[in-house]
Order: sequence, then structure tokens, then C-alpha cells
Amino acid sequence: MGPGSPARGELFVGDDAAILCPLVGQVVVSTDVAVAGVHLDLSLFSVADLGYKAVAGALSDLAAMGALARALVLAVTAPPGTDLEALHEGVAAAAVAAGCPVVGGDLSRGGELALAVTVIGECPGAGAVRRSGARPGDRLYVTGPLGRSAAGLRRRREGAGLDDALVLAHRRPRALLAEGRAARGAGARAMMDLSDGLGIDLHRLADASGVGFALDSVPVAEGATREEAISGGEDYELVVAAPDPGRLGEVFAARGLRAPIEVGEVVADVRARTLSGQPLERRGFEHRL
Amino acid sequence: MGPGSPARGELFVGDDAAILCPLVGQVVVSTDVAVAGVHLDLSLFSVADLGYKAVAGALSDLAAMGALARALVLAVTAPPGTDLEALHEGVAAAAVAAGCPVVGGDLSRGGELALAVTVIGECPGAGAVRRSGARPGDRLYVTGPLGRSAAGLRRRREGAGLDDALVLAHRRPRALLAEGRAARGAGARAMMDLSDGLGIDLHRLADASGVGFALDSVPVAEGATREEAISGGEDYELVVAAPDPGRLGEVFAARGLRAPIEVGEVVADVRARTLSGQPLERRGFEHRL
Repeated sequence: MGPGSPARGELFVGDDAAILCPLVGQVVVSTDVAVAGVHLDLSLFSVADLGYKAVAGALSDLAAMGALARALVLAVTAPPGTDLEALHEGVAAAAVAAGCPVVGGDLSRGGELALAVTVIGECPGAGAVRRSGARPGDRLYVTGPLGRSAAGLRRRREGAGLDDALVLAHRRPRALLAEGRAARGAGARAMMDLSDGLGIDLHRLADASGVGFALDSVPVAEGATREEAISGGEDYELVVAAPDPGRLGEVFAARGLRAPIEVGEVVADVRARTLSGQPLERRGFEHRL
Repeated sequence: MGPGSPARGELFVGDDAAILCPLVGQVVVSTDVAVAGVHLDLSLFSVADLGYKAVAGALSDLAAMGALARALVLAVTAPPGTDLEALHEGVAAAAVAAGCPVVGGDLSRGGELALAVTVIGECPGAGAVRRSGARPGDRLYVTGPLGRSAAGLRRRREGAGLDDALVLAHRRPRALLAEGRAARGAGARAMMDLSDGLGIDLHRLADASGVGFALDSVPVAEGATREEAISGGEDYELVVAAPDPGRLGEVFAARGLRAPIEVGEVVADVRARTLSGQPLERRGFEHRL
């Protein structure tokens, strides 16, 4: 199985395992599973969308480390009759958009359609940005306005077409790999991707760092509600804690990336978790077994 | 999700992605999916066995390249009520047996139990052994007698206990990582693991190399039938094409590994595929969608 083309010297071979060229510095790896009906409603979206979202969501975990995506492999379970061409089309489109070759895969018959996407990236030196590095006084940023994905899902349920801008944000999310590397280059101390919503993911970053936060505001995307911006999942924007307020914006500007949006500050008191001075409860999207 | 312990300096972190230390030389990666009811009958075997087999089967693909296993990640889809402790126990046991840390994972609700195991290994230099390097005149070896796994499945169906030696070979296979590295060190030109049976896997090696083969014999494991030895899958023994008849045995002996068994020769005629002078048809275990 090999949508996407070999790139940067990778050998994609029909062998027992794919062979990559040497990886530079720290290697980062993550795996994500996506199940039809659990992660995406196939009465509203296509099998290609499921493939696209699964790949973009997995690559977003590399973005959150500040890594360069080097390779992905795909494991698929599918019932007979599944449109595997459409699935591959979605997978390939997301892989190509991120410049990450699909180097291998496995396919099995099963009772439901499920994908496991494993991504491998690299960070030069020892530079992967973790969740745990935020320190009191760091400024907090997000890479864009929030709530677009949840708003898109709502709009699709209300009958919006697949090409609606917010619906597109839901079914064809972008892994912010360039933004993640820019944030690493700018000295970000902690970073996460907002896969489950700021209202839960920022708590996770604060927990890992042993700090609190004071948010001044949450940037709500046009067409989204405030609740969707706080609790909606799958935006895949990055939240960044950075010690130098000017540096992040400079590096993003120099690389032609949209300016990050300052949203607040990291504070010392681990129990202080506020938005506009009010406690921000832990809320957002959590998959449950 | 993290059974198995960090080893050799890997950072196993509850972060967006796991961070590994630099990998040496060529990086090899493979993914394998295992579905309850498709790859293992849970009325005969346990959920722990499914986890063990999935991990061992994936690691066997690294063995087939001559690689050192460095990390694995696990993606699980499971219905509510699945005994995840048992699953982890099996996964961890296989990972520990191979000295390969489990560095990350993902878990989702789903309608059936399925695992995708992705393994990452390294080969110093550019030494990964592929399927395609066999040349006329190379001698062919297998790392052990064949048919144990298929015989174990048959015996289990006939009522044998879980501790029966052949049943154990089926439910707790061993990835021959040390043997694979020894074969690479001894100058093996082509190698595969016998996951689907010699009767199909050797054809694949010959196809990839553009050669034929002349088998003198097939070593049948005690308790197995000749048919199980040829067509039974999941033995995970390695088949090796090596130019120097003595060298392979010497390296295996020096490393305390069981002597490889010579089974025949690589021939130039790509259509010549024989066992004891008779055509060996392509037959073995193929998962079908």
C-alpha cells in the first residue's frame, strides 16, 4: 500500500519493512486511530475525509513537538466493499499537503472501517518541544482563531455543503507543521496541538508543566460560537508558551506564517486556571471507551 | 498507554509524541494489524495472546531486515468491556521478550478488537537486508524447522492445552531479531520472515530478486505435517539467501544461535521454482479482504 511518493531519499520498497534514510537528531513518533462512526460520521462525510482527517490528526502531533514529518505508515481494517481507493485518495492528499511520504501499510478484513496512522518525525539536536516546559511569566499564544472544526460539524449537520469553509475545516484539517517548527525555532518552551479543545488541552499543558494560566481572551473564529472555540475539538491549532513575546511573532513573520495570537500568561499557582478572571473549567472533547 | 519500560535512553513521555534518541544508520519501519476473529480465534486463545502475536509478528518484520528493534507504538480499537489489562499484558510480554520498549499508543472505542502495531528499528550503515538481493548460486537457509504454528493451531482446535509446546508456538511466537542481525552480519544477500508460509514467501523473495529456486528439502517440525511446514503461516522463521555457505553457520554459532538449516539453492531461471525436483506451487496463507 503506497499512496504518496517517496521523497527526500526515502526508499519505499515492497519489503518486510520500509527503509528510511538516517534521521537527524531526536526522533519523535506518534500513533492515532480513527474509527468510522466514532471519529467521523460517514452519513455526513466521505471515506476520503476519514483518511484525510486521520493523517492530518496524526501529523498534528508532530507539529506539536516542532518536528519535521519524515514518514508515515498506515494500518487499515476494513469490511468487504469498503471504497479503498477513496480512502487512499484522502490519505494521499493529507500526506502530500504535509510533504510526508506514506512508506508502508497493512490491510486487514474487519467488521468496521478503522485506520491507525503512525507518524515519524525528527527534531535537530535535542529540540523537541514538550508539554512540560512552561514557566511562570511565559506568554501564551494560539496559532489561529478557534472553533472552526466544531462549527463546521454543526453546519454540516444543519445541511451545509461539503465545500463550506467551516465544513472544510472539519473534514480537511491542516497539520501546522511549519508553525510548530517556527515556534521551536523561536524558543517555545511548551507546545500542544488543540485536538480536544483549549478547555481541556491547556489544562493538560499546565498539568504537565506544574503551572497555572491566566487567559485574557479566546479568539473565536468567524462563524463559530464561544463555546465551540473553548470546547470544540479538532481545530489542530497550536497553543504555545514562549518566554520572549516578540521573538515568536518575528520568526512567524520571517517565515511567512500567520501571526500567532496572544491569549494570556502562564502563572505560578498551579490551581489558578482562569479566563478573563473567572475559573476555566476543564471541558472539551474526550473520546470514551 | 505504556506497557514495557523505557530502555536505552528513550524518553517515554505523556506528550503529543514520544521522543526517541537518535537512531543509528538506516531506519526501518513496519506496521501490522491484527483483528480478533480474523487473526486469532478468541474462543481458543486469549486477548493477551492476540496482543503478544500482534507485537511479535510486527517485530518479525524488523528481524527480516536484520534490524535492531528500537521502539514500538500501539493503536487499539476495542469494544466496551474489553480486557485491556490482559491485552497490555500480552503486548508487554512480547515487547520485553524482544527488548523493545513500547513508547506510545492510542486507544479508541470500536465495534471489534483490533490492534495496529508499528515498529521502528535501525540498521547500522546501509545494511538492511532486502528481499531483492538473492543471486544465482546463493545457498538458501531457514532458521528452524517449519510448521509448528499451524500444527499448534490444529492441536488447539483438537483440544490441546494452552501450554502444549506447539500451541505455544502458535500463540506466543518469537521474533528472531538476533538471528536476523546475525544473518545480516554474515553477509546475507536476501531475507524474509515466514509469516505466510514458505510456499508463498519464498516465491515472493524469488519474485523480488528476479531468480528461481531449487529446494532440496523442507525441514518439518516434530508434530507438524509436511503440508503445515510448506503452507502453514506464522512460523516467523527466517529464510535467508547467503553467498558464503560457511559464514552464516559460523556467525550463528559464535553468537550462540541455533544453526541455520540449508534447504536449497538460488537459480538463475526465474521460472524454476522446485522442491525435490518437482514444481513448488505458490500456496500458503493469505489474508483476504
